[in-house]
Amino acid sequence: MPNAYELMSEAELSSEIASLEAQAEALRAKGLKLDMARGKPSPEQTALSRPMLDLLSSTMDLTDEGVAVDNYGAPDGLPGARRLAAQILGVDPANVIVSGSSSLNLMHDTVAHAYTHGIAGNKPWGQQGRVKFLCPSPGYDRHFRVTAYYGMENVPVPMGPDGPDMAMVRQLVESDPTVKGIWCVPKYANPTGVTYSDAVVRAFASLEPAAPDFRIFWDNAYVVHTFADEGDDLLNIYDALAEAGKTDLVYEFGSTAKVTFPSSGIAFVTASPADIKELRDAFGVMHVSPEKFTQLAHVLYLRDLDGVLAHMRKHAAIVRPRFELVQRKLTEGLGDLGVATWTNPRGGYFVSFDGPEGSAKAIVSLAADLGVKLTPAGATWPGGLDPHDTNIRIAPTYPSLEDLGAALDVFVVAVKLVSARLAQKKNV
Amino acid sequence: MPNAYELMSEAELSSEIASLEAQAEALRAKGLKLDMARGKPSPEQTALSRPMLDLLSSTMDLTDEGVAVDNYGAPDGLPGARRLAAQILGVDPANVIVSGSSSLNLMHDTVAHAYTHGIAGNKPWGQQGRVKFLCPSPGYDRHFRVTAYYGMENVPVPMGPDGPDMAMVRQLVESDPTVKGIWCVPKYANPTGVTYSDAVVRAFASLEPAAPDFRIFWDNAYVVHTFADEGDDLLNIYDALAEAGKTDLVYEFGSTAKVTFPSSGIAFVTASPADIKELRDAFGVMHVSPEKFTQLAHVLYLRDLDGVLAHMRKHAAIVRPRFELVQRKLTEGLGDLGVATWTNPRGGYFVSFDGPEGSAKAIVSLAADLGVKLTPAGATWPGGLDPHDTNIRIAPTYPSLEDLGAALDVFVVAVKLVSARLAQKKNV
Repeated sequence: MPNAYELMSEAELSSEIASLEAQAEALRAKGLKLDMARGKPSPEQTALSRPMLDLLSSTMDLTDEGVAVDNYGAPDGLPGARRLAAQILGVDPANVIVSGSSSLNLMHDTVAHAYTHGIAGNKPWGQQGRVKFLCPSPGYDRHFRVTAYYGMENVPVPMGPDGPDMAMVRQLVESDPTVKGIWCVPKYANPTGVTYSDAVVRAFASLEPAAPDFRIFWDNAYVVHTFADEGDDLLNIYDALAEAGKTDLVYEFGSTAKVTFPSSGIAFVTASPADIKELRDAFGVMHVSPEKFTQLAHVLYLRDLDGVLAHMRKHAAIVRPRFELVQRKLTEGLGDLGVATWTNPRGGYFVSFDGPEGSAKAIVSLAADLGVKLTPAGATWPGGLDPHDTNIRIAPTYPSLEDLGAALDVFVVAVKLVSARLAQKKNV
Repeated sequence: MPNAYELMSEAELSSEIASLEAQAEALRAKGLKLDMARGKPSPEQTALSRPMLDLLSSTMDLTDEGVAVDNYGAPDGLPGARRLAAQILGVDPANVIVSGSSSLNLMHDTVAHAYTHGIAGNKPWGQQGRVKFLCPSPGYDRHFRVTAYYGMENVPVPMGPDGPDMAMVRQLVESDPTVKGIWCVPKYANPTGVTYSDAVVRAFASLEPAAPDFRIFWDNAYVVHTFADEGDDLLNIYDALAEAGKTDLVYEFGSTAKVTFPSSGIAFVTASPADIKELRDAFGVMHVSPEKFTQLAHVLYLRDLDGVLAHMRKHAAIVRPRFELVQRKLTEGLGDLGVATWTNPRGGYFVSFDGPEGSAKAIVSLAADLGVKLTPAGATWPGGLDPHDTNIRIAPTYPSLEDLGAALDVFVVAVKLVSARLAQKKNV
């Protein structure tokens, strides 16, 4: 369907472009320096967790269920931290390792383990020639970078409103033994905000991979990160696996990076008993034992899943108005032009925006020129290659509401001007 | 030279063995459960750093030289933490990365980087066929495990009173391009307590490796861990490199695991500008950014090198009597028998003990039988293979003085009984 600019006469379009260029010039003259690029909590959000910093003290009991917090030991993490992580993910604490502050680091170490030592007694991925990893796209660039770093071929799989295209996933996973894994953010996916439907989760759990060393990397980064009154429900992948009579198929990851403090939260991984034992043994070579004061502080501060959910409602109160502002500004600015679509998630950190074919790079570049930094166009696709150059990731959490409004005004003008110019080119 | 038991008549020796067996039985009857196995600070030592837990608070400024502590960013670590680490190692903060709480983890990640991606544009170690790593022995088992884990051939190099046998090191490193690295604990080495002499450090700095991707892994774990009035001086390896006109040869590692809290300290790595840039790029794929609250607490608590040294004197007051007790008990119990030698270090965490040829496994086993756990015999050699079965690592820091004394009494009886039985066998 042609968009509003494509329906204009040549004269109308020229006049519209001139008007938009004038608006752009006026914005440029403001000398703005705004940033909608990064999925970072705002200072108001990190301030919510400041009371956690008062919980450790020189006079306190430095044990957790009999385990010394202040010395070596507890390679799987403190018992309390494992239980907290297990509650967040809805799994058995016996299958949880809490280690470090970065779930991306745990994902990297798991990929690296498979690459150098192999999974479940199979040949290391690094010795199997060219192997492939499926990348639901648009998706998270840092996931894609890890597998690309180990020379794997990242294969994009389209994301739909219910999750990845499972017909394609099944076809690739079940027919091709060089397909070794898939990156998933199953709830409030980065950047679409999509939560996988029960049918999609069940389809994952019932995969019959051609490769015995195929694993699903289930990065449940936003498992409790709802900002709407009513959040999305994600079927527990391990329940779905049990239903399907499967095991040894999923590594699940999580962290409190966006619950308490980015880079200073606790990170965790869970898997089947056999898979987690294998990771435990590998980690046993790499680490002595994890940092346990941060774990203790988290146990004391968040306590349990109810504590986490109560804390996340405070985040929601801060985050929600920002996402509402994105919807309002985009609807007001672009709603009747037919040039763009965007997602309206109930949680997570991003809005995924699609402009006209061939527009994303130009929009990001023009916005930068007008003082607004966005995630580089293409970043949401493996290798940075968005096949239609349409997708832009909007990260509205970090700026203040005022800055966010100003940034969105710039963004709307950039989208309109680029779209109008594209329509003009088409006419020529 | 024959030892005292070997000089005894058959009858004398039989009677001595009977007497030692009676002593052993009396000790066994006590049902002791003591542990001299692990290089762990005692609870009194970790208690020294408890005031650090009071330094972070909900109302404090959460920036370090303008860098946000409570959000993403600062992938190389907080500026203050990098400066503190640089002072501890005596290097330029610009070449320091502070990340995580485990220097073993940084060493692992560096070996893994070389194995999967190669150093300085060379082929990954993992694609070069069989490669070798030099292991001064006795040495640290967890070092040896890392390189063994990546399929490298760990080649033992004898440790002398001034450091590794540098003639052998030079010959191997300069003639064999499959030799890719060497594990060093240059100060108060684990387990000998040896500090490398200036000549040894200079010999390291002037190596002309056959392999362009050869690196020295300089684990300066005990750089400030002196417990004597006057400690050892270690020549700065980077000064020696500058003197020799060399660069890109040494990765140096350190941590505060045994300054503040095991597993909850800060860990750091430094190298030449080119080598550290390469690690920074590799770590950039693996991590988002390091845990920074722990870093801030360390900066506030330790402040600078003077603060570290003052803190280490408090450790020394606790540790020194334990090492003195080891010397006294061993001298009193074994001094005139000629069956054993042991080191008398001025810092670090271990005493290295050598009994008669073929005695170590039997001593460790007998001591365990009598209620005293020691590091497994052989652990200080690559693959756990002590060629003469003589070496035992004594770790005196964790037990109380009373427990340590009781454990040493058991150890002395075990050494005597095993030595006497070996003498008896020889006579037969």
